[in-house]
Amino acid sequence: MGKKVGVVLSGCGVQDGSEIHEAVLLLLALDRAGAEVVIMAPDIPQSHVVNHRFGEPMGGERNVVVESARIARGNIKIMKYVTAHEIDALAFPGGFGAVKNLTNFFEKGSDCDVNPQVARLILECNDHNKPIAACCIAPVIIARVLGRKGVEVTIGDDVSTSSKITEMGAVHTNCSVFNIVVDEKYKIVTTPAYMIAQSIKDCNTGINKMVTKLMELLG
Amino acid sequence: MGKKVGVVLSGCGVQDGSEIHEAVLLLLALDRAGAEVVIMAPDIPQSHVVNHRFGEPMGGERNVVVESARIARGNIKIMKYVTAHEIDALAFPGGFGAVKNLTNFFEKGSDCDVNPQVARLILECNDHNKPIAACCIAPVIIARVLGRKGVEVTIGDDVSTSSKITEMGAVHTNCSVFNIVVDEKYKIVTTPAYMIAQSIKDCNTGINKMVTKLMELLG
Repeated sequence: MGKKVGVVLSGCGVQDGSEIHEAVLLLLALDRAGAEVVIMAPDIPQSHVVNHRFGEPMGGERNVVVESARIARGNIKIMKYVTAHEIDALAFPGGFGAVKNLTNFFEKGSDCDVNPQVARLILECNDHNKPIAACCIAPVIIARVLGRKGVEVTIGDDVSTSSKITEMGAVHTNCSVFNIVVDEKYKIVTTPAYMIAQSIKDCNTGINKMVTKLMELLG
Repeated sequence: MGKKVGVVLSGCGVQDGSEIHEAVLLLLALDRAGAEVVIMAPDIPQSHVVNHRFGEPMGGERNVVVESARIARGNIKIMKYVTAHEIDALAFPGGFGAVKNLTNFFEKGSDCDVNPQVARLILECNDHNKPIAACCIAPVIIARVLGRKGVEVTIGDDVSTSSKITEMGAVHTNCSVFNIVVDEKYKIVTTPAYMIAQSIKDCNTGINKMVTKLMELLG
């Protein structure tokens, strides 16, 4: 029977939600690996809405789980109803939603707060030795929740972000878009994706490696 | 030098815009094939906005090119400024946006109107012998614009939709999610994608074949 992997979305669009390419490539790689996905998002308002044509804030309010449902084709759960018992692993695509909606890292840096449901599920998975994958900027969430354990992650080679990861207690290792960083002890695998990627196919290479390793850590 | 392929989006989300998985898989396949993409959408209001969690209409107005920019990561053109001279081929992902925003086929069936800019670019490409790809429900647009020539397309095996394609003068051939239908004379390649697909990896198989054939037709 296929392993169940929770996929945590944060909206729909790189500027104010989940990075769409990363989310879809993650879902493709998991499907190819024979995993069953449990897509979820917190039922909260987005921190703001960005016009992606101009890269500027626009009017209106949007809800994180409602917008994430666009990527999930409607098949999505509210995060607070998901426990680690029903999944074998957890995975996070990137996008600014990860640091604006799932955490307020974008605003507060290393002093950020993590959405309580997101923090809970990461801790539950880690407590039960279930592996966690994250790409792009999303590894900062892992760093904030598990930093005190000294977990090792990557967001690529951006010095400003990696220094904040270090401030949160985690270890940052530089990494190319084609590679992954693996913390074997805590079963955490991360890759830079669009923190560095210049093209969707390069982004796909790293995400495929991340998922391959995630499935290996799952055993 | 890479061939330039125009990718026409119709919003962001299967229920009221472009099917996100199809759009991303199309962009991935084109990048892998060495094509340069010119992503575009018409600058018009969406016909409506659907809450994808519940599959029901929701409040607010959204613009097709602004929402499409989420999938395009901001790199998008307004369709009326794109001519066939600057592209070597044209490609359409599916999603209800294709039949609600690019045409009103969802409402009017075989008597539908096509957005004038969409019709113009299809005709320009066809006049200049430039190949066109379309998946999911999007082949109905091709059928409406080029049906009088008797072009051959597929949307899978849905009898209600295929009969309307026939009414528009086109030839419909049933096809599995793993395959494509090719009109060699008019250089049109279509595949059912999520009209039939039960999983993202099956959807990907058909879209990859469609893009491989599109590039072959490009010479």
